[in-house]
Amino acid sequence: MKTEVLELHTGREPAVIDITANVDRFCEKLGQGLVNIFVPHATAGLALIEIGSGTEKDLLATLRRLLTESEPWLHQHGSPGHGADHVLPALLSPTLTIPVVDGRPALGRWQSIVVVDLNRDNLNRQVRLSFLSA
Amino acid sequence: MKTEVLELHTGREPAVIDITANVDRFCEKLGQGLVNIFVPHATAGLALIEIGSGTEKDLLATLRRLLTESEPWLHQHGSPGHGADHVLPALLSPTLTIPVVDGRPALGRWQSIVVVDLNRDNLNRQVRLSFLSA
Amino acid sequence: MKTEVLELHTGREPAVIDITANVDRFCEKLGQGLVNIFVPHATAGLALIEIGSGTEKDLLATLRRLLTESEPWLHQHGSPGHGADHVLPALLSPTLTIPVVDGRPALGRWQSIVVVDLNRDNLNRQVRLSFLSA
Repeated sequence: MKTEVLELHTGREPAVIDITANVDRFCEKLGQGLVNIFVPHATAGLALIEIGSGTEKDLLATLRRLLTESEPWLHQHGSPGHGADHVLPALLSPTLTIPVVDGRPALGRWQSIVVVDLNRDNLNRQVRLSFLSA
Repeated sequence: MKTEVLELHTGREPAVIDITANVDRFCEKLGQGLVNIFVPHATAGLALIEIGSGTEKDLLATLRRLLTESEPWLHQHGSPGHGADHVLPALLSPTLTIPVVDGRPALGRWQSIVVVDLNRDNLNRQVRLSFLSA
Repeated sequence: MKTEVLELHTGREPAVIDITANVDRFCEKLGQGLVNIFVPHATAGLALIEIGSGTEKDLLATLRRLLTESEPWLHQHGSPGHGADHVLPALLSPTLTIPVVDGRPALGRWQSIVVVDLNRDNLNRQVRLSFLSA
C-alpha cells in the first residue's frame, strides 16, 4: 500500500479546503485501485461537493444550523461552540474511499474533495492518503 | 480491480433508487473482498437503509426538513431549492464500501443499497461499482 | 481478506459503544492495508469521535433533535420513534474504512470508533471487520 500524509493550514475560521489536486497527484501512475482519504482528527470531516458556486458557504451555514452553537453542549473545553465541532465528524465522516481508474480518481465533473474544519482552535491539520490496488 | 458503471434513470422528482440487485450481480463469483459503490455526481448520495416499509419517504421528508428549500442558498442556478441538493452529498456521502464474502455483499437482512437523488434537473445518473480482493 | 464478526450487547437504551480496542486487536500483525468496519443492521450506524468528554451524549442529543421522535413517521412498527431509527444509517453510515499502518489503525489521538444504536428493540448487534492489504 502506498500511503502519505498531507499537511494543511486550515486557519482560525471555519474552513472548507479543497484537496482534489493533492489526491490527483498522489494517484498519478498508480493504475486501478481504491484511494482512501482519512483525516486523523476529532473535529474535522470530509465531503465530496461542488466548489466555486457558493456551496462551500451553504455547507458551513447548514452545519451551523444543524449543530447549533448555543446548544448546552456537555463537551465544553475550548472555544464557545467547540462541543458542536466534536459532533461534526459523525455527520461528515473523516474517511472517504474513491475508485481510481487509469491513475485518476474517478470523480464526476462537479465533484471536489474537501476537508471541512469548523474548529477555531487548530490551525493545522493532517490528511492521510492511501492507495490499494488489486 | 473489476470496475463497471451502471446507468440509472432517476427522473424529475426526488428519488430513492434501490441498486442492491445490481451490486449483488456485480459481486457474483468474486469471492472475498471489498466492493466500493461510487456516485460521480455533486447532487446525489448513497445510503444503506431498509426499504419497503416507508423509510424511503421518511428519509426524503427528513432531508427536506434538514435542508430547508427556502433557505437563502448562495448556490442559485437550477430549480428552486437546488442549493440544498448541493449540500446533500456532504450528509449522504456518494461513496460506500461494503465487505463481500463468498461472492455476496455481507449486508444485513434489512439493508438495501440506495441512491438518493433530490435533483429535479438531472434525469439520469451513473454509479460506479469497483471490487478489490486480497 | 481477513474477516471476522464481533458480537456486541447494546441494550435497551440509545447507546454509543466504543469498539476501538476490538479493531486494534483485529489489525495486530496485519501490516499495511485498509480495515473496513461494517454494521449489518438497518437501525445502527458508525462514527469516529472523541469519547470520554461528553461528546457521546452530545451526539445522542443532536440525533434526537435532528431525527425528531414525534415526527409522523411512515415506518411505524416497533417502539415509538422507531421510524427515526431507520433514518439514522443514512446520516451515520454503517460502514467506515480506515488505513492501517504497521498493524495499527492510523487513528488520530482523539479518535475512537463507535457504534451508534438508537434502537430500543434490539439488544444485540454484530460488527464485521475486514482487512485488505496490497
